[in-house]
Amino acid sequence: MKVNYPNGKKSSIKNKKIKSHGLLFENAINLSNEYYLINNRAVIHKKPTPIQVVKVDYPQRSRAKIVEAYYRNKSTTDYNGIYRKKYIDFEAKETYNLSFDFKHISTHQINHLKRIADHGGIAFVIIYFKKCDKIYIIDIKKFYQLFKEANNGGKKSITIEQFEELGQLVEKGYAPLIDYLSAVDKLYFSK
Amino acid sequence: MKVNYPNGKKSSIKNKKIKSHGLLFENAINLSNEYYLINNRAVIHKKPTPIQVVKVDYPQRSRAKIVEAYYRNKSTTDYNGIYRKKYIDFEAKETYNLSFDFKHISTHQINHLKRIADHGGIAFVIIYFKKCDKIYIIDIKKFYQLFKEANNGGKKSITIEQFEELGQLVEKGYAPLIDYLSAVDKLYFSK
Repeated sequence: MKVNYPNGKKSSIKNKKIKSHGLLFENAINLSNEYYLINNRAVIHKKPTPIQVVKVDYPQRSRAKIVEAYYRNKSTTDYNGIYRKKYIDFEAKETYNLSFDFKHISTHQINHLKRIADHGGIAFVIIYFKKCDKIYIIDIKKFYQLFKEANNGGKKSITIEQFEELGQLVEKGYAPLIDYLSAVDKLYFSK
Repeated sequence: MKVNYPNGKKSSIKNKKIKSHGLLFENAINLSNEYYLINNRAVIHKKPTPIQVVKVDYPQRSRAKIVEAYYRNKSTTDYNGIYRKKYIDFEAKETYNLSFDFKHISTHQINHLKRIADHGGIAFVIIYFKKCDKIYIIDIKKFYQLFKEANNGGKKSITIEQFEELGQLVEKGYAPLIDYLSAVDKLYFSK
């Protein structure tokens, strides 16, 4: 995925990890969210990674230094916010394969997204297939259906052909880098 | 605030910090959110505290140990989720005084909540006055108005009498401990 950050816009995102071959998928989503925010289209933020702090030192008065902490499992998803007056919630994944294996997403997260859909929110998974440089979003209800089938002895993954059929392709561009809200428009607001 | 955790319900919240004199305000809100979730009334979670990780060790293969990290400033709020099909977002504060000083909430957070309201979401501040053991919610638009006046030379705080007049009292109970969604019903859904 070749992506560039548009010139002339100031970014507040630290540590963008920009590499010569492009941005990481997550950073590209974060920059897109920043673009949506600046343009007042949506308010969507990445949730911080949950960390359990065990020990804190105070080497300087001004700043606490965490010296022992551990990553915790996420109980919800990476992103949520508000779009077109609706609650929106999604998990972002990337894979080198041409299918997405259910083992790469936790049951907690799937159940959380299903619950959001049941409460009337927009809930989906967004997946970047690196090998063919394509991004799809798939509504959680369809994802959940396939997940249940997998648990009952069905296929343990979703192929890119299924994403093509059941999901919505996300256009990549310049600003925003990943215009996933236009895909959301098509999937949730076009009727 | 004397609060007890209802018997017979299993909690998934770790480190509840239950003390003999009761729970901390934040923990009481977390338990209330858990109650709302179990009863399928709303899906509202506390966001993790943002932490910048600088150095990670791998003393055991199974678990990464963070050995240098720092707390970062929050750009958004403590809580968000979905309730009655609407996006809901709020910041929780507590004070020993009988007024709330604007210096205890960041401009970033106020602007974030204002933005949510502009996008059609439910956005408010919930404040626990420890001295008189009362909890109020105040809609961000009213809060923002007073904040703007403070920046233009007006009063730098909101008194509890103003909360009484402009906000909505939150009932404390047994299950949920802090029934703030009933206050939300009165403030946002009663017309």
